[in-house]
Amino acid sequence: MSTAKRARKPASQSESLAEGVLAGDRRALARAITLIESTRDDHRREAAELLETLLPQAGRSIRLGISGVPGVGKSTFIEALGLKLIEAGHRVAVLAVDPSSQRSGGSILGDKTRMPELASAEAAFIRPSPSRGTLGGVARRTREAMLASEAAGFDVVIVETVGVGQSETTVADMVDLFLLLIAPGGGDELQGIKRGIMEIADLVVVNKADGQLKDEAGRTAAEYQGALQLLRPRSPHWTPRVLLCSALTGSGVPEVWEAVGAYRAAPGLPGEIAARRAEQARQWLWQEVQEGLMAALKADPAVKAEVAALEARVKAGDLPATAAAQVLLRAFLGSR
Amino acid sequence: MSTAKRARKPASQSESLAEGVLAGDRRALARAITLIESTRDDHRREAAELLETLLPQAGRSIRLGISGVPGVGKSTFIEALGLKLIEAGHRVAVLAVDPSSQRSGGSILGDKTRMPELASAEAAFIRPSPSRGTLGGVARRTREAMLASEAAGFDVVIVETVGVGQSETTVADMVDLFLLLIAPGGGDELQGIKRGIMEIADLVVVNKADGQLKDEAGRTAAEYQGALQLLRPRSPHWTPRVLLCSALTGSGVPEVWEAVGAYRAAPGLPGEIAARRAEQARQWLWQEVQEGLMAALKADPAVKAEVAALEARVKAGDLPATAAAQVLLRAFLGSR
Repeated sequence: MSTAKRARKPASQSESLAEGVLAGDRRALARAITLIESTRDDHRREAAELLETLLPQAGRSIRLGISGVPGVGKSTFIEALGLKLIEAGHRVAVLAVDPSSQRSGGSILGDKTRMPELASAEAAFIRPSPSRGTLGGVARRTREAMLASEAAGFDVVIVETVGVGQSETTVADMVDLFLLLIAPGGGDELQGIKRGIMEIADLVVVNKADGQLKDEAGRTAAEYQGALQLLRPRSPHWTPRVLLCSALTGSGVPEVWEAVGAYRAAPGLPGEIAARRAEQARQWLWQEVQEGLMAALKADPAVKAEVAALEARVKAGDLPATAAAQVLLRAFLGSR
Repeated sequence: MSTAKRARKPASQSESLAEGVLAGDRRALARAITLIESTRDDHRREAAELLETLLPQAGRSIRLGISGVPGVGKSTFIEALGLKLIEAGHRVAVLAVDPSSQRSGGSILGDKTRMPELASAEAAFIRPSPSRGTLGGVARRTREAMLASEAAGFDVVIVETVGVGQSETTVADMVDLFLLLIAPGGGDELQGIKRGIMEIADLVVVNKADGQLKDEAGRTAAEYQGALQLLRPRSPHWTPRVLLCSALTGSGVPEVWEAVGAYRAAPGLPGEIAARRAEQARQWLWQEVQEGLMAALKADPAVKAEVAALEARVKAGDLPATAAAQVLLRAFLGSR
C-alpha cells in the first residue's frame, strides 16, 4: 500500500505571515505591517484576514504615547527608556504617528539611526510612521500595527508623535498612558504649552535636567506642576505627575518607568484602562464608518459637481450651511 | 371702467415672518426661532426658506460666547453687561446652548426670570436653549437663531452655556470671542479649570470680586493669568486677558465691554474674525453633511440588524474595528 502524500494547499500569504508574527519573528512583523500599510485592494483584504487571525493574541501590553516637539530629545529618551525596559525583561515596540512625513520626505520619527542601540536589540522593534494619507489613515494603520506588535509578543508598545496639529489627541485615543516630553524652557526656546496637550498628559517629563540646564529644568517642572494642579484630573484614580530626567545620562529614566508602573497599579486603574480600551475600540469603529461614508460621498460624481461652488457660497455667507448640506446629501443619497 | 383689484397671493408664513424679523419685531423673531426649532418636516422646509431670505441681512454683530458653571453668577453678569450695552445704544440678543435641559426639564439658561430687567428691555431679546435633541441639533438651531437675530438688527449676540461636556467647544465654534466666567476659588468650591476650557477662552472674568471675596478673587485672577501665560496664544493678534468684576455692584463690567472692543479693534483681528467666520461656516457645512450621513446609516434597516452585535464584538476585542466598519458600510452603501 502506497502512502499517498496529501497535497498540502500552500499557506496564503496572510497565514504564513500570521505564523511568523505569532512566533515573535521581527521580520515577519515588519512584513505584516508593510501589508497593513499598503493601499492596494488585494493587500487590504489580506491585511484584514491577517488581523482577524492575530486579534485574539493582541492586547497584552501597556500602550504608551510619547509626544514632544523636535529638539526635546525624544529619540534619546525613547532609546534610554527602551533599553531599561529590555534590561528588565520586556519586549518593546516603537511605532510612530507623523502625518507630516509625506511633506518632509520621510519621518524623523521611528528613525533607527537616531536610536541605534535600541534598533539593534533583539527584544526591540522600531517602525517609522506610515508616510501616506490623512491623519485618520495613519491612525488606523498605526492601531493595526500596534495589534500586530502585541500579537508578536511585544509587551510595551510606544507610539511617538511630534505634537503637530491633532496628532497628539489621535495618539491619546489609542494608548493607555500619554507622556509629554519637554525641554527646560527659557529664552527663544520658550514654546509655551500647546493648548490642549495639558488635557491629555498623564505624565510630563522634563528632559535635559543635567549640566547647565539643571536649574532651569527644575523651574520648568514647577511651572508645569502648577499648571496641572489647576486642571481637573481626567481620572479619579490618577493625578498627573511631573518628573525630571536626563536621557543622556540616564538619570531619572527608571523613575519614569516606575511612574508608569504606579499608573497601572493604581487602585481602579486596571478596570479603567480596560474600559478605556473598549471605548477606544468602539470609537475607532465609528470613526472608520464615518470616514468610509465621507469618502464615498466625496467621491460621488453628483457631489463633486456641486461641492466647490457650494462651499464658496457658504463661506461667503450667501447660503446657509444647512441648505448646502441638504443639496449634497440629496445628491449622494438620491432616492433613499 | 371698474378698477379690478388684483388678487394678492397671501404671503407664505415664512415671507411674513421674514418681514417681521427684518423690521426688528421681537415677537416675529421669537416665532421665527420657534419655527427653526421645530422638527416637523413641513416646518423644516419653511425654516430653510426663511433662513435663505434672512441670510443676506445676517452677520452684522459681535458674537460672544459666555460660559460658566452654575453658581458663578452668569445671569447676573449677562444682565449687567446687557444693560450697559443697551445704555450705549446696542441691541442685545441672548441665546443658549444647554443640551442637558432635556433631562432637567427646562433650561436654567436664557431664563428671563433670572434677568428680569434685561428681559423687559425693548432692545433686548432673550431665548432659552432648544430643549430637544443632540448637542449637534441644538448647535444647529442656535446657529440659525443667531442668524435670525442678526437679521432682526441685534448687533450683540450672546450665546451662553453651562460648561458641561462639549457644549463649550460647540459654542466656541460659532462665536467670535469666548468669555469664561468664574467665581473666586476656595475650599469646597474649587472646581479646578475644566480641561480644554483654557484652550478656547479669549477673556477670563472673575466675578463676585466684592465684599469678603475680593481678595480671593484677586488671587484666583492671578492663578488664571499664570495658567494662561503658559499656553501658546491661539492668535498672534490677541493675548487672553483676565479681568475682575462684580456683576452685583456693576464694578468692572464696563471694562469687560472695553476688552471686547479692544479685541475687535486689535490690528489684524477683523480680518481674522472674518476668516474665522468663513471657516466656521465651512465646518458647519461638513458637520451637517456628516450628521446627515450618519443618521441615514443608523436608520438603515440592514445596518440596524447588525450594529449591536458588531459593537459588542469590537469592544470585547473579538473583531477588528476596521472589519466591523466594512460590514456596516457594505450593508448601507450596498452595491455602490
